[in-house]
Amino acid sequence: MAQSDKYHLHLETVRKRPEHFHLSEAAWQSAAHRHSQLAQQVRVTIGYDGETLEEALKTADFMINSLPPKERLRERAPKLKWIQTTGAGVDTLLPLDWLPEGITLTNNRGAHGEKAEDSCALALLALHTRLPETLQFQRDRVWKQILTAPIAGQTALILGFGDLGQGAGRAAKKLGMKVIAVTRNGKAAAPADAAFPVERIDEALPLADYLIVTTPTTPETRGLVPARRLDLLKHGAGVINIGRAALMDYVRLREKLESGELCGAVLDVFEQEPLPPDSPWWTVRNVIVTPHISCDTPGYIDRLLDRWFENFGRFVAGQPFENAVDRRWGY
Amino acid sequence: MAQSDKYHLHLETVRKRPEHFHLSEAAWQSAAHRHSQLAQQVRVTIGYDGETLEEALKTADFMINSLPPKERLRERAPKLKWIQTTGAGVDTLLPLDWLPEGITLTNNRGAHGEKAEDSCALALLALHTRLPETLQFQRDRVWKQILTAPIAGQTALILGFGDLGQGAGRAAKKLGMKVIAVTRNGKAAAPADAAFPVERIDEALPLADYLIVTTPTTPETRGLVPARRLDLLKHGAGVINIGRAALMDYVRLREKLESGELCGAVLDVFEQEPLPPDSPWWTVRNVIVTPHISCDTPGYIDRLLDRWFENFGRFVAGQPFENAVDRRWGY
Repeated sequence: MAQSDKYHLHLETVRKRPEHFHLSEAAWQSAAHRHSQLAQQVRVTIGYDGETLEEALKTADFMINSLPPKERLRERAPKLKWIQTTGAGVDTLLPLDWLPEGITLTNNRGAHGEKAEDSCALALLALHTRLPETLQFQRDRVWKQILTAPIAGQTALILGFGDLGQGAGRAAKKLGMKVIAVTRNGKAAAPADAAFPVERIDEALPLADYLIVTTPTTPETRGLVPARRLDLLKHGAGVINIGRAALMDYVRLREKLESGELCGAVLDVFEQEPLPPDSPWWTVRNVIVTPHISCDTPGYIDRLLDRWFENFGRFVAGQPFENAVDRRWGY
Repeated sequence: MAQSDKYHLHLETVRKRPEHFHLSEAAWQSAAHRHSQLAQQVRVTIGYDGETLEEALKTADFMINSLPPKERLRERAPKLKWIQTTGAGVDTLLPLDWLPEGITLTNNRGAHGEKAEDSCALALLALHTRLPETLQFQRDRVWKQILTAPIAGQTALILGFGDLGQGAGRAAKKLGMKVIAVTRNGKAAAPADAAFPVERIDEALPLADYLIVTTPTTPETRGLVPARRLDLLKHGAGVINIGRAALMDYVRLREKLESGELCGAVLDVFEQEPLPPDSPWWTVRNVIVTPHISCDTPGYIDRLLDRWFENFGRFVAGQPFENAVDRRWGY
């Protein structure tokens, strides 16, 4: 196939992002080797920090990007048909009014559930056994026993029950917990024992021994758990956030953790990331800060490119894309 | 029933042990209330630190004790028929040559498995995700991502497959791991995928991604994992000990942790407990020290007394005791 007959795919990376998220030449070559038939139909360009972006956009049919260009996109990219984002959350791209008709946006959802399951099991058990306190005793060289009952029978309330939420649900279920989901329509797949529609979240929050936030930020979910809803949690409940910080009033959350009204939190997401060195979150005694790693794995980009090739195969065959972002819901 | 016709049960507690292990008047009254029929046949005395022990032994039919008196026991306690220990491990009582014929020793095994399951799930995930390093980054206020794959597919090698070992096995299995047990006879119940007899432990150790020690200290298990066997573990393996410290060469273990040959350890047991403030274990960077809490729960004594009543019911009915310690094997 002549170069000019091939589809043009542009890969764009922000250099300051961790290297395991880089759409590098090596990652591409490796993926192209795994999908050699389809790769013959693709001509690829690789850019960093937008340095070659404008030139690439002129001819690109597809692009993969963590933060796609939004301004006057049709004008700058007349042939563009499909943008794949590297993340699952597209909150920074909402609302999608910048996205021209005829360009499909796909995200990387579904790549995170298995790791989310492990991360939530770890977080639930760490909070339930009061691990942060035991670790403080270790640093103080004090032998002091905190005895806790098995976690079985406790209730996990999970906000959102997509890829991450179901992973959280599997973790809780395997630990013998009761699983309640809060979803848009009040329905939830296994392993939820029960589900509430988001309009009835106020009834669900008091049931939680552990609240797990797994939702993306969308116009509907932003601010879903303001101070007054945090106050609906029972005394001694714990909070896990592997979704987005904008869901929740973090100021009130910190107050409730510092006062001991909440037993602890494992927070993987923050309004500002990286969390700045002077953030008060680093030192809250019953909080474990993890740096946005709960749902990511090594080989992330390899799997992203594998999924891209699968979708490209669908495109070539005239089938609809998987993981297309719904313009109404923003995920 | 006249007082003199009742069986005499003596409860003996060491004051310096944590309060949740005390055989207190309140704990007894509560248990007697739960088992009121059987309790009518029992006259109880309660002592601390041996202050009233000699007097009690003269008439005691039964006693519950963390550390039973071993010297000239038949002479001091002519009517004694049954000793219940408060722990599962009876290593400090071995060998059992002091135990007169006609006195049954029962332990509290079987009370620890459910909590052991939670503790092992937490320990496995903490080691696999390199949580100690992430927590150090938190203390240093550094946003640094350590990405790790899901734990599914990794191999847990479990030494001993009794109550604790099976709990560890259930934890590993639920995490999608492969479970290999090392047992006396090379057989292991579900959820083990495979089992080795202890004579072939050298073949099993190199298979472990995570080694979990759950065995009591007996003449057979003491020193089971000396330095040369620790050296059979693969580079980067992790170690969890919820059994006993005497199983393993802790000096060599620490060397291998400090050098990074082993990825980390979660240690719940030590040769000397409480671990003294000057122990080097407190500060090994990839080690989590827990103060012998992995298998214990609040309400421990309540359940011990419930099990005691169940066994007492068997005794009254002329049935054999459950949890009798086998003189040959020491558990």
